[in-house]
Amino acid sequence: MKKYLPTIPDFPAFAHGGDYNPDQWMDRYPEVLEEDIRLMDLAGCNTFSVGIFSWARYEPREGEFQFEWMRYILDRLHAAGKQVFLATPSGSKPAWMSSTYPEVCRMDARGRREHHQGRHNHCFTSPLYREKVAEMNRKLAKEFGAHPAVKLWHLSNEYNGECHCEQCHRAFREWLRVRYGSLEELNHAWWAHFWSHTFHEWQEIDPRDASIEGMRLDWLRFITSQTVDFMKHEIASLRAAGAEQPVFTNMMGVFPHLDYWRFAEVVDVIADDSYPAWRYEDEADRRTASRTAMIHDMHRSMKGGKPWLLMESCPDSPQWIQTPKPKRPEVYRTEMLQAVAHGSDSVLYFQWRKGRGGMEKFHGAVVDHVGSEHTRVFRQVAELGSTLSKLCDVIGTTVCPQVAILFDWEVRWALENSRGTGMIHYVESVVEAHRACWKRGVSTDILESTCPLDSYKLVVAPHLYLLKPGVVERLRRFVEQGGTLVLTSHTGVVTEHNLCHRGGFPGGGLRELCGVWAEEVDYLYEGASQKLSMNEGNSLGLIGNYETGRVCEVLHAEGAEVLAAVTSDYYAGHPVLTRNRVGNGSVYYLGTPPDEDFLGAFMAALMRECGIEPVLQTTLPEGVSAQVRTDGTTDFVFIQNFSKRPRKLVLDAREYRCVESDMQLSGLLELAPWQTRILRR
Amino acid sequence: MKKYLPTIPDFPAFAHGGDYNPDQWMDRYPEVLEEDIRLMDLAGCNTFSVGIFSWARYEPREGEFQFEWMRYILDRLHAAGKQVFLATPSGSKPAWMSSTYPEVCRMDARGRREHHQGRHNHCFTSPLYREKVAEMNRKLAKEFGAHPAVKLWHLSNEYNGECHCEQCHRAFREWLRVRYGSLEELNHAWWAHFWSHTFHEWQEIDPRDASIEGMRLDWLRFITSQTVDFMKHEIASLRAAGAEQPVFTNMMGVFPHLDYWRFAEVVDVIADDSYPAWRYEDEADRRTASRTAMIHDMHRSMKGGKPWLLMESCPDSPQWIQTPKPKRPEVYRTEMLQAVAHGSDSVLYFQWRKGRGGMEKFHGAVVDHVGSEHTRVFRQVAELGSTLSKLCDVIGTTVCPQVAILFDWEVRWALENSRGTGMIHYVESVVEAHRACWKRGVSTDILESTCPLDSYKLVVAPHLYLLKPGVVERLRRFVEQGGTLVLTSHTGVVTEHNLCHRGGFPGGGLRELCGVWAEEVDYLYEGASQKLSMNEGNSLGLIGNYETGRVCEVLHAEGAEVLAAVTSDYYAGHPVLTRNRVGNGSVYYLGTPPDEDFLGAFMAALMRECGIEPVLQTTLPEGVSAQVRTDGTTDFVFIQNFSKRPRKLVLDAREYRCVESDMQLSGLLELAPWQTRILRR
Amino acid sequence: MKKYLPTIPDFPAFAHGGDYNPDQWMDRYPEVLEEDIRLMDLAGCNTFSVGIFSWARYEPREGEFQFEWMRYILDRLHAAGKQVFLATPSGSKPAWMSSTYPEVCRMDARGRREHHQGRHNHCFTSPLYREKVAEMNRKLAKEFGAHPAVKLWHLSNEYNGECHCEQCHRAFREWLRVRYGSLEELNHAWWAHFWSHTFHEWQEIDPRDASIEGMRLDWLRFITSQTVDFMKHEIASLRAAGAEQPVFTNMMGVFPHLDYWRFAEVVDVIADDSYPAWRYEDEADRRTASRTAMIHDMHRSMKGGKPWLLMESCPDSPQWIQTPKPKRPEVYRTEMLQAVAHGSDSVLYFQWRKGRGGMEKFHGAVVDHVGSEHTRVFRQVAELGSTLSKLCDVIGTTVCPQVAILFDWEVRWALENSRGTGMIHYVESVVEAHRACWKRGVSTDILESTCPLDSYKLVVAPHLYLLKPGVVERLRRFVEQGGTLVLTSHTGVVTEHNLCHRGGFPGGGLRELCGVWAEEVDYLYEGASQKLSMNEGNSLGLIGNYETGRVCEVLHAEGAEVLAAVTSDYYAGHPVLTRNRVGNGSVYYLGTPPDEDFLGAFMAALMRECGIEPVLQTTLPEGVSAQVRTDGTTDFVFIQNFSKRPRKLVLDAREYRCVESDMQLSGLLELAPWQTRILRR
Repeated sequence: MKKYLPTIPDFPAFAHGGDYNPDQWMDRYPEVLEEDIRLMDLAGCNTFSVGIFSWARYEPREGEFQFEWMRYILDRLHAAGKQVFLATPSGSKPAWMSSTYPEVCRMDARGRREHHQGRHNHCFTSPLYREKVAEMNRKLAKEFGAHPAVKLWHLSNEYNGECHCEQCHRAFREWLRVRYGSLEELNHAWWAHFWSHTFHEWQEIDPRDASIEGMRLDWLRFITSQTVDFMKHEIASLRAAGAEQPVFTNMMGVFPHLDYWRFAEVVDVIADDSYPAWRYEDEADRRTASRTAMIHDMHRSMKGGKPWLLMESCPDSPQWIQTPKPKRPEVYRTEMLQAVAHGSDSVLYFQWRKGRGGMEKFHGAVVDHVGSEHTRVFRQVAELGSTLSKLCDVIGTTVCPQVAILFDWEVRWALENSRGTGMIHYVESVVEAHRACWKRGVSTDILESTCPLDSYKLVVAPHLYLLKPGVVERLRRFVEQGGTLVLTSHTGVVTEHNLCHRGGFPGGGLRELCGVWAEEVDYLYEGASQKLSMNEGNSLGLIGNYETGRVCEVLHAEGAEVLAAVTSDYYAGHPVLTRNRVGNGSVYYLGTPPDEDFLGAFMAALMRECGIEPVLQTTLPEGVSAQVRTDGTTDFVFIQNFSKRPRKLVLDAREYRCVESDMQLSGLLELAPWQTRILRR
Repeated sequence: MKKYLPTIPDFPAFAHGGDYNPDQWMDRYPEVLEEDIRLMDLAGCNTFSVGIFSWARYEPREGEFQFEWMRYILDRLHAAGKQVFLATPSGSKPAWMSSTYPEVCRMDARGRREHHQGRHNHCFTSPLYREKVAEMNRKLAKEFGAHPAVKLWHLSNEYNGECHCEQCHRAFREWLRVRYGSLEELNHAWWAHFWSHTFHEWQEIDPRDASIEGMRLDWLRFITSQTVDFMKHEIASLRAAGAEQPVFTNMMGVFPHLDYWRFAEVVDVIADDSYPAWRYEDEADRRTASRTAMIHDMHRSMKGGKPWLLMESCPDSPQWIQTPKPKRPEVYRTEMLQAVAHGSDSVLYFQWRKGRGGMEKFHGAVVDHVGSEHTRVFRQVAELGSTLSKLCDVIGTTVCPQVAILFDWEVRWALENSRGTGMIHYVESVVEAHRACWKRGVSTDILESTCPLDSYKLVVAPHLYLLKPGVVERLRRFVEQGGTLVLTSHTGVVTEHNLCHRGGFPGGGLRELCGVWAEEVDYLYEGASQKLSMNEGNSLGLIGNYETGRVCEVLHAEGAEVLAAVTSDYYAGHPVLTRNRVGNGSVYYLGTPPDEDFLGAFMAALMRECGIEPVLQTTLPEGVSAQVRTDGTTDFVFIQNFSKRPRKLVLDAREYRCVESDMQLSGLLELAPWQTRILRR
Repeated sequence: MKKYLPTIPDFPAFAHGGDYNPDQWMDRYPEVLEEDIRLMDLAGCNTFSVGIFSWARYEPREGEFQFEWMRYILDRLHAAGKQVFLATPSGSKPAWMSSTYPEVCRMDARGRREHHQGRHNHCFTSPLYREKVAEMNRKLAKEFGAHPAVKLWHLSNEYNGECHCEQCHRAFREWLRVRYGSLEELNHAWWAHFWSHTFHEWQEIDPRDASIEGMRLDWLRFITSQTVDFMKHEIASLRAAGAEQPVFTNMMGVFPHLDYWRFAEVVDVIADDSYPAWRYEDEADRRTASRTAMIHDMHRSMKGGKPWLLMESCPDSPQWIQTPKPKRPEVYRTEMLQAVAHGSDSVLYFQWRKGRGGMEKFHGAVVDHVGSEHTRVFRQVAELGSTLSKLCDVIGTTVCPQVAILFDWEVRWALENSRGTGMIHYVESVVEAHRACWKRGVSTDILESTCPLDSYKLVVAPHLYLLKPGVVERLRRFVEQGGTLVLTSHTGVVTEHNLCHRGGFPGGGLRELCGVWAEEVDYLYEGASQKLSMNEGNSLGLIGNYETGRVCEVLHAEGAEVLAAVTSDYYAGHPVLTRNRVGNGSVYYLGTPPDEDFLGAFMAALMRECGIEPVLQTTLPEGVSAQVRTDGTTDFVFIQNFSKRPRKLVLDAREYRCVESDMQLSGLLELAPWQTRILRR
C-alpha cells in the first residue's frame, strides 16, 4: 500500500482555508486585507483560492489590464505564510465583453441570446471567447506563474451549462461526423427511421429534438466533450506562458449534466464542492452521510486512490437552501472530517468572508458581517484548525478497497433520457448499494463501468442499463478469475447508442453470463411491493421473507441457481435473486432495487463468502461510520457518529491511540452525538 | 334493427393486428419481415396499418421518390393473407423540408418558429405543405390505390395542434369574415367594447388575446375547421389520383382541442385510439371502465350506430405513463373485448413490434425486444386472436339505445374558456351520467347537441351551458312528443358566442321549458356539500335525503313540480330537482352535478317511468357491465367483470349460449376476476 | 380632533355605487341606461365611475374623436341626481394603436414585444404613448371638465406592470445616473465586484440580472418612479386643459410591485380596491378580517387620517377566485361597513352590471344577467344603501391612534429580493402585529418608515430589515422623548442599497439603541419551534413559557434587560426578548416573529404600560372588532362580528345609541353571526 506525494506541492501543513475575495473590499476598505490575515492566523487557516471572478478588475475595459492589485494580495498572503490557488476568471466575463461581442453570451434552446447576467454564462464554443480566455490566462501565467505563493491553478469555477448557438450546433455536427463517419451509421445508431427522422444532410441535425433518444445521449456526451475541450484550452494557455503548477477545477458532486470522469483525465488534482443538507433528524442524516461518503469515495477513486481536495464546503449554512439553519458545531466538525476520512487532503470553505452585497451575502462564511473572531462559527473553525494541524501525517495516505460499485454517467443519462424508465432512480440505487458497505465499515471504491476491476473481490453494478463497448468482456473476465459480480434490474438493456439489445435482457452477452432472462418489468404504485422468499438450502445460506422495491422484473432462470423467488401476483414463483457460477467466480442477478433489509442480508452474506475485511472487526451502531487511511504502516481510523444520540462500540484487539489526545484506547469507545474520533493504529 | 355492411370491405375475418413499421428494420434486418409474418400467423393477426411515418423513406431528398420498398411489403403481406390500411405520411415531415421551407414548421403563440422536432409539427395552413402533401398522396394513390392488400386509407395520424404563423392568423381572419360578415357583428358577438377591445379593421384581430372569451371559442372552432380542411385536402388528393377505398383517421377519445363530430362528417369510417389507465384498484378501475365505455359509445354514435375501429390500443403498457405496469392477461382481454362490446369491428394495437430506439422503444407491443413468440404478452394476444376468430358474425352488428346523453365540444370549450366556471367538470359530469346507465346495463348513445333525438325515450344533457342555434327548439319538440329530458346546472347560460343570455338562466327559452329560474350558483369548498331532501309524494316516487355535488344552484320553481329541495344554508327550501310537464313529456332540472347515490336513485326512477329496457333483466354486481350487439335476430351479449373480485349474476329467462364454448347457459353465471363472457341469445 | 372636508366635493350623501359601463350596451340595448337609472334609485346608489376602458369608443380610428355619447350619459346621470368620477382611459389602448405603433406595447424580460391583448399593456416610457394619453386627457378635460356631474377624476385603472423595451432600459440608466452620480458610487452600492459585475459604462447596465440584489431593488424603485411619473403626466394634461376636480387612482391593497406611498404624494384622494377572500370558516375569516383592517388603516394613514374611498369591492363573488361562492348577505354587509369603520367615505362596487361577454362576465355585480331588481344580491345592496343614507354625519370623520405599525415597501422589496431571507414573511408579520391591536379594539395607523412618529405612544416595526436614511435617528428621538418602540428579528440588516451593515446586527446604530447583538439566525423546519421562558421579575411583569416562531435569532444582551430567554437547543440561555431604556422611553427587541399567544401577552403588557386606550373599555370576543370614527364631539363606534357564531360583549358605561334604530343601548350587546352594529356615543 502506497502513500502518495502531497496533493499540494511544497507545503508542510494540512490545507485549511477557502475562497477569498479581498478584491470586493480593497477599494473602500483597504484595511480588510490585513485584518483578514490576522483572523486567518487565529483560525488556523493557511490556504486560499483567489481571483475566481476577477476578470472585470483585471481588464476593466477591453485591452486595459491591471495586475498590480493581485500581486499585492499574493505578496501579503505569502509573507503571512499562506499558500494560494490562483483561479482563471473565465467563470464570469465582464459586461463590456457581452455588449461588444454578443456571440460570447449563450443562446437558449428557443434561440434567444441571453442578456448579460449571473455567471457561467458564456458559450464554450465561441472562438472569440476562447481567444479572450487564452489571452487572460497567458497574462496571468506570465504575471504570477512564478509567484511563490501560487501552488495550484484553479480552473474557472463549477463549469456547467450548455449553449444552443449556431456555432455550438455546428460543433456538435462536426463531433458527430467524427463519431459516426457516415449519416447511414448515425441514422442506425439513432434509430432515425422512427417518426421519419432520418437525416440525409449533416446540417439537418438539430440537437433539440427530444424524440430521438440516441441524439439526446450524444448531445450530453458532446456537452461534456466541449466543456473538457474548453478546459484543455485553458490549461494549454497557462502552460504556453510557462505556468508549471498542477491544475484542478472544482466539481459538483454527482452533477447530472457532466461526466466528471472525463474531467479527471485532464486535471492534475481532483477537487470537489460538497454541501450536504443536514436535516437534524437521524434517519435523513444517516442517508445524507452515506450519500456524501459515496461521492467522496468516487472522487478518491478518480485518480486511483490519490487524495483529493475538498474545495468548497460551508462552515455554516448556504443562503440558497430553503431552511438555512446555522450548522451546529459538532455537525460542522464531523462533516469536514468525513471528507478527510474519505481521502481529502484539505478542508476548504466557500467562503472566507461574507460580501456586503450580491446574491451570496448570506452564504455561510468564516468571517461574518460583524467582522470579528467573536462568533460561534469563527470559534468552531479555529477549533477544527487546531485538529487539522495534527493531521500532517495523513497527507498522501489512502485506502485500497476490496469492493467496487459502478456509477457511470452514461448509464445515468441513458436511463434518464429513455421514456419508460422514470421509476428507476439510478443515483439512489448506487447510494443504497454503497450504504450497505458503508454501514458495515467496508471501504468501497466508486468506478465508472470501463475502469479496471482486477484488484477487487466484489463488484456491484446497479442498473447497468447501458453497456459501453468492452464492458461485458471485462465483467466476464473479472468473474472467471474468481470475482463476485452483482447485477440488478434493468441491466444490459441498451447499447452505447441507447438502442435496445435484441434477443432478451440482460443483453449484449449478459444473459448467458447471468444464466437469467428478464422477460418483463413490473412497476409498482407508490407504497406497494411484492413479496419474496429465500429458497431453502440456497448456496448463500440466506433465509426468510422480504419485499421487493418499487420495480420488479419477471425473471426466468436459464442455468442460474435460484436463491429467492417472488411469492405474489401473476409472476409468483419466478426468481428474483439468482447466482450463476462462471469460472472461479459467481454472478448474482437481483431483479429489483431491493429495500434496505433485503439488500443488507444479501450483502452481509456476500461479504462473508468473499472474505471482505471491514475497517473495524466489530458491529457499527446505526449512523456510525468507520473509515481508514493508511500509508501501509500506520492506519488512521476515522470513527464518526452521524446521529444526535450517543453511540458506543467495542474496539477490536489492535492497538489504538487517539490522534488528538495521544491517549491509548481499547475496549468500549463512546461517541457523543455527532462526534468524530480519529485513531491511529 | 339493421346490420351494417362490413366496416372493412372484402375481408371475411374479424380484424386483429395493428400498426406495423417494417421500414424501421429493413435496412439492417431484412429478415424481420418474414419473421413477423410467421409471428402474425401464430398470433391470429390479419390486419396492419403501414407507412404512418414513412415520408423520409418515400422521399429522402426533395423530388426523389422511392416506392418499391413499400410495394414489396404490401406484396408480402398480401401473399400471407393480411389486409392493410395504408397511411398518408403527413404526420411527420422529413428534415429536409423543415430546413428548405421553414414556413412548414409551426409558430408558437410567442411568435417563435419551431425547430425540426417530434411529430405533428406542421402548419395546417401553409400552401407549400399542402402542396407537398397532395403530391405525396397522389403518388401513393397512384402507386398503391389498386393494390389488393390495401383496404382502407389511414389519414395521417392523431391530427392535433395549432400554429400561430401569420398565414394561420390571416386564415382565421378570413374565417371570421365569412362567419360574421361585418366587424360590427363580430364586435357584438365578442362583446368587444369590454376593455376597449373593439376592432375597426380586420387585420387588428390577433387570436392570442385570452381576455376575449368569444374569440377564444372561435379560435378553437377555427382550429377544428382548419384541421378538417387539411384532412379534406388529403382525401381529395387521394381521390384525384384514383384511390377508391374508404378513409379514416385515428381520433384520440375526447381530446380537448378538436371537435371530432366535424371529423365524423368527413371520414368514411370512425376509428379511435384507446389507452385506459388501469390502476388495479376496483373503484378506480370501475370509473375507468365506465369512462372508456362512454367514449366507445360516442364513436359508435358518430355514424348513427355504425361499427367503428379500435385503431390503437396497447397489449401491454405504454411507456408514457408514470407507472407502466405490465397489463395483466385478463385485464388486457377484457379491455379489448370492451371495445367490441361497444361496437368496434376490430382489435388493433399500437404496436406490433417495439423499435430498438426512439421515444417509443418501451411502448408495449405484441413482439418484444426478445423477438420471439415465447412471451406472456404474445401468448395472450394469440389467445385473444383465437377468440376473435369466432366473432365473424358480430361484424356489422350494432345496438339501438333508448337513452342518449349529450356531449358537445363547443359546450365544453365555452365552459373551459369562461372565467368563473372552473369548478364545472364537464367531461366528468357526462361520464357520471353515462355511468348511471352503464351500471344498470342500459345501452346509451353519446350525441352532440344538434343530433336528432326522435328515436330516444330519455335524453340527458349535463351542463348544457352553450346553446347552439336550434337546440332549444329541438329539445322542446322532443319533450312535447313524449320524451323525457334531464338538464342539470349551468344550462342555457350562453349563446353560441359565449354571450350570457339575458332574462335569467336557463336562458334562450329554457326557463319557460323547465319552469325554473336559476338565480345564482353556490360553489362549495373541497369536501363540502349541501343537504337535500326529497319532497313527500313527488311524482317520481323518490324518497330520502341526499347531498349535492360541489356546485349547487339556487333555484326558483316557476310552474315546475319540486321533487327535492335543499335543506341547508341560506338557500334552504329552494328546489334542487324539479319536473315540468310539457306536451306529452317531462323536463327534469337538477341544480347540481349529483353524487353517485342521488343520481343513481333518480335515474333508476326515470328508467322505470320511461320503460327503458336493460340488456339483461337482472341486477348487475358492482363493476360488471352488460352490453349487446345485434343484427335484429341474434343478440351478442358481452358480460364483463371490471373487478379483481369474482362476481356472479342470474341470467334472465332467455336462451343463452356461450360463443366460445358453444355451451348453453342459464341461471347463475359466474365471472372470474376481470373475466369477459360473450353469449349469443 | 378634526373633521376633514368631504372627500368628494359638493355632494351631500354618503357615496354608494361603483364602476358603470353603459358603453358596453348602448349600441344594441339603448334602453339599458334608463333601466339602470331606475335600478340605481331602487338600490340607493348615487355615485358612479365611468369611461374606464373607453378609448376605442372615444377614438375608434386614429384622430377620429367621439364624445357625444359620453356627454349623453353624463347628462342623464346628472339629471337623475348621480355624481360621477370620470376616468382617463389609459388602462387599455385601442387595437389600432398597437398595430400602428408597436412601441406602445410592452416588451417582456426575454425581449419579446407583447401582441395586443388584455389591458394594462402599455409601455410607461414610450413618448408616443404619453403623447396619445395627453391628447386624450386634454380633450376629456375640455369636453367634460366643467360638467356638473363630474366630481373627481379617476386616473387610469390599477396601474401595474413593467416593460423591458430599450426606452425603459435607457430611462432606468438615466434614473441611476441621477441617483448615483458616478459608476464608482453605483458599483459600490451594488457591490458589483461580486461575480465580476462591475460596470464601466452606463450602457452596460441591464436590469434583468437577478444576481445583483441592489440592482433589483433599484429596478423596483424605478418602476414605481416611472409609474408615478406617468401618472403625473396624466394629471398635468388634465390640468393643462382646465380640469379642476381632485384626482385619484385605484390602488390594490398591498400590491407587491408598487410603493403606494409614492402614489399618495401625487393624488388628491386615496382610493383602494378590496377583495377579501372569505372562507366561511371562523379562524381563516378572522385572519382575513384583520388583514383587511390593516390595509384599510394604511390607506387612511396615507393622508394623515383623511378619509379614503373604497373604490372597488364586490357585492357578490369575483369570477377569478377558485371557489366563487355567493357572498352571504350578512358577510357582504359587514365587509362593506368594515371599510367605513376604518375611514372610507364610500362603498363602491366593481361592478354595477355584468357584461354579457368578456372575461368578467361572471364577476359579481349589483345587476345580474337576469337584469331585474328581484335578486338576492340586489336586495342586499339596496338594504345597505338604506343604512348608508344614515351615515352622512360620518363623512369626513377620522381617528387619531396612539399606536403605529411600520410597513414599508422598500423593506419588503429588500427582504423578498435577498437570497436567504425567504422564511421571513414580512407582510404577514405586519398583519400579525396589527392583529394584536385589532383584537383588543385598539386603533392603529400603518406608516412607512420615514413618517413622523411624534403623535404615537407605541411604534412597532416588524423586521425593519432595510434602513432608509434618517430612520434610525428618528426612532432614537421617538424613544428618547418617551416613546415605546418594538423591533423584531431581521432588523437593521441592510442599508438602503441592500448592503449588509458591518459591525453586527441590528446595524446602522440600532445595536446601541437596542442594547442587543443578534449574532445569527436559526431557521426552523416546518412545524418546529424553540421553547422560551419569561425571566422572573422582568420589568414588564410577564410570566410563563411560550414558543418561538419559525425563525429565531441568537441574541446577546449588551446592556438591555433580558425579559425572556430561549430554553432549548444550542443557544439555550440566549435572550429572545429584551428591553433597553433610552431617554424617557424603551426599545424592545424580539428575536423571533412570535406566535399569536406570545405576541398577545407581550402586547397586552405594553398597552397597559403605555396607557393605550381601546375603543371600548371591555374585552372583545374572538373575531369581534371595535373601531371608531369621530369629529371630536361625536364618536361613531363600529362593532363587527366576523364569526359565524353569535357573540356578546358588555358595553362600557358611556351612553350609546344605535345609528340605525336610534335606540339607546347599554349593558350586554348581542351580535348575530357576522352582524355589524353602528353606535353613536
